[in-house]
Amino acid sequence: MTKNKVLKSFIPVSKESHFPVQNIPFGIFKTEANEKPRACSAIGDFVLDLSVLEMNGVFSKFLPDKKNIFSEMYLNRFMSLGKDARNNVRREIQSLLSEDNPFLRDNESLRNECLIPSVNAIMCMPADIGDYTDFYSSKEHATNVGIMFRGKENALMPNWLHLPVAYHGRASSVVLSGHEIVRPKGQTKDDDAELPSFGPTKLLDFELETGFFIGQGNNLGEPVSIDSAEDHIFGMVLVNDWSARDIQKWEYVPLGPFLAKNFATSISPWIVTPEALEPFKSEKVKQVPEPLPYLQSRNHMSYDIKLEVSLRTEKMKEFTVISKSNFRYLYWDMCQQLAHHTVTGCNLRTGDLLASGTISGPDRDSYGSLLELTWRGSNPLKLPGGEERKFLLDGDELKITGWCEGDGYRIGFGEVTGKILPSIK
Amino acid sequence: MTKNKVLKSFIPVSKESHFPVQNIPFGIFKTEANEKPRACSAIGDFVLDLSVLEMNGVFSKFLPDKKNIFSEMYLNRFMSLGKDARNNVRREIQSLLSEDNPFLRDNESLRNECLIPSVNAIMCMPADIGDYTDFYSSKEHATNVGIMFRGKENALMPNWLHLPVAYHGRASSVVLSGHEIVRPKGQTKDDDAELPSFGPTKLLDFELETGFFIGQGNNLGEPVSIDSAEDHIFGMVLVNDWSARDIQKWEYVPLGPFLAKNFATSISPWIVTPEALEPFKSEKVKQVPEPLPYLQSRNHMSYDIKLEVSLRTEKMKEFTVISKSNFRYLYWDMCQQLAHHTVTGCNLRTGDLLASGTISGPDRDSYGSLLELTWRGSNPLKLPGGEERKFLLDGDELKITGWCEGDGYRIGFGEVTGKILPSIK
Repeated sequence: MTKNKVLKSFIPVSKESHFPVQNIPFGIFKTEANEKPRACSAIGDFVLDLSVLEMNGVFSKFLPDKKNIFSEMYLNRFMSLGKDARNNVRREIQSLLSEDNPFLRDNESLRNECLIPSVNAIMCMPADIGDYTDFYSSKEHATNVGIMFRGKENALMPNWLHLPVAYHGRASSVVLSGHEIVRPKGQTKDDDAELPSFGPTKLLDFELETGFFIGQGNNLGEPVSIDSAEDHIFGMVLVNDWSARDIQKWEYVPLGPFLAKNFATSISPWIVTPEALEPFKSEKVKQVPEPLPYLQSRNHMSYDIKLEVSLRTEKMKEFTVISKSNFRYLYWDMCQQLAHHTVTGCNLRTGDLLASGTISGPDRDSYGSLLELTWRGSNPLKLPGGEERKFLLDGDELKITGWCEGDGYRIGFGEVTGKILPSIK
Repeated sequence: MTKNKVLKSFIPVSKESHFPVQNIPFGIFKTEANEKPRACSAIGDFVLDLSVLEMNGVFSKFLPDKKNIFSEMYLNRFMSLGKDARNNVRREIQSLLSEDNPFLRDNESLRNECLIPSVNAIMCMPADIGDYTDFYSSKEHATNVGIMFRGKENALMPNWLHLPVAYHGRASSVVLSGHEIVRPKGQTKDDDAELPSFGPTKLLDFELETGFFIGQGNNLGEPVSIDSAEDHIFGMVLVNDWSARDIQKWEYVPLGPFLAKNFATSISPWIVTPEALEPFKSEKVKQVPEPLPYLQSRNHMSYDIKLEVSLRTEKMKEFTVISKSNFRYLYWDMCQQLAHHTVTGCNLRTGDLLASGTISGPDRDSYGSLLELTWRGSNPLKLPGGEERKFLLDGDELKITGWCEGDGYRIGFGEVTGKILPSIK
């Protein structure tokens, strides 16, 4: 257990900052002056260029035979080294940034080289994602959607309480925060129409999710036990799983969502480590019925992460919060998701992304999608300025943010944003 | 249009060979003497080392600025060059191998270097697969499965005749022919059981499929029109989509198959080009109702490809044929699949694999899975020697092969095989 609370950096960090020295997330960035994507961490309002530190020999004792690992355009090679390498590097960065370490503090030229104001950093995709999987692990969300799509009788399917339901998503269309989302066209069928029709989706939605990246993978044919699942998790990001509800409704039986989800999935650029989240572990969710042994563990990875969704229409100056949820609401935790995913022998590879599914809480204010917030459009959101929203309109911007609230500091994820563009002609 | 029939090679090729000079498929291989995976083609009983030909300047006029493209461990960079590059290279190889071209024919030292007996070639994965998608495009298969899983009333879902249903599969576990398949464990629930249980799948099945690889991709947000779909298709392989039916039945509602399919998908090593298949184009399938305009085209990519599934149990000496189907039975063709996949703007990348779904024909003898062949085990297969099979048992070997029958020659795919190993303890 790191003594997070007593750590202090020589870099001033506000109490609301997502990136105090207790966090030390990992990402990839470039600048206008140096367009080569490279690894970084964050401290307050600065990005810390890890490739510069690496070239100055800072990590050589931990990564003796890993040359230029932070000069690569993705974090994958670093991620593949596993938990100990990540911990050593993270602790070394914390030490370098701490107020009582003169190495960086008193070296102005090195400071200028490796500390870049965040406003000048262009964040890039942190990992080369092999496969992307999306779970469905919020009981409240599954129940809400079930009621709307299948009626109250069949809301929660019989399997839901026994296994973390999931589907394989589309890795090619995972994009970074800020990427603009073109409204997809597709096939839909109104309930009262005889035939399907084609056109831009009318029910474009977001899904408030988190995701985790695989560090060390597993070999095909060799399941990861739930007790060693944590060792394979490199860290977490925020995820917005954009969804076209009308396309989804028409296509999803019997093989699940396909085009309704594959036009874009947005992620936040900073990967927050399990070590940074450790002080915010929440109580283990009580699961009734008890899951099968392969899904039971002494450990768990549920955390008290506050999640917030904001919307800004073209007419609005500021974002307005439309949902407040929490990661701890999830019924199935990350260890269970990972153990389930691999129990058949399925291999996870470094850089694979596993997302939580929409994280809805118990109350309407904590629902993680417009589908639920407006109850399929029947109860539109009323926005400041008098506008209403059932689903997303062109020009709308959506922002998801998340953080853990510590004693005088925050462990934050930054944000994932996306603006809706009109369909192409 | 190449004059396929009159082409003849100085290498003797039997009439039953899958690899006459009219074929010229692409693959990746290595040998015990040279363990570096590299690109190859096939001619009769030989593998043709394209990296050796490239080093001898054979392709320099077609690929002037693409150095060592055939020395890479995957075909992706070559595939990304598109249709014209593929055609030029393929025609050059045909010319090199033709009986009236002395360049290779009369150069014994070069011949010895670039022509390796197939028995000495170790075939490797031909492409680095980014995403893998599996369609569900056989009407007969969808109807059969629908009847068994959901009853006759709901057999073919209302969307099925309007769009090529598909789901995202697992790319990490796509393996090459010959890879042994460990029987997966997972969660299942018997109809009369109150609770699910955990253990090795009891209903392990194959699925007879084909797949195609993406050559040039498309940008996110930019759909590929059906009329240009063919330009993005590099070539075809055989696919066995191994399936655990009991796991599938319990998990697949509402998000589709997940663990039931992600433990392994096997492909054949040779990628057969659209140009080699061109002479075997079959009639366009009549689709009623007429699909929406974005799924209509003048062109189509249906071919008369004979497909055959054989089984050998541990007690049998020889494989026995258990199904004979044909690629032309598919209702939705590859152009429609590709256009549908990208209509939302979803980006396909070079090396992505799109599979057909199980290809069943109209009669029981042409069903493409044991689920259908034994009608869920109610009508077991009777094998030579007296054994019966409802589903695959440990030690069983399955083989899928496919070819087009020309006038005195075959355009073949080789085969995709896999042997079932017991579950790990």
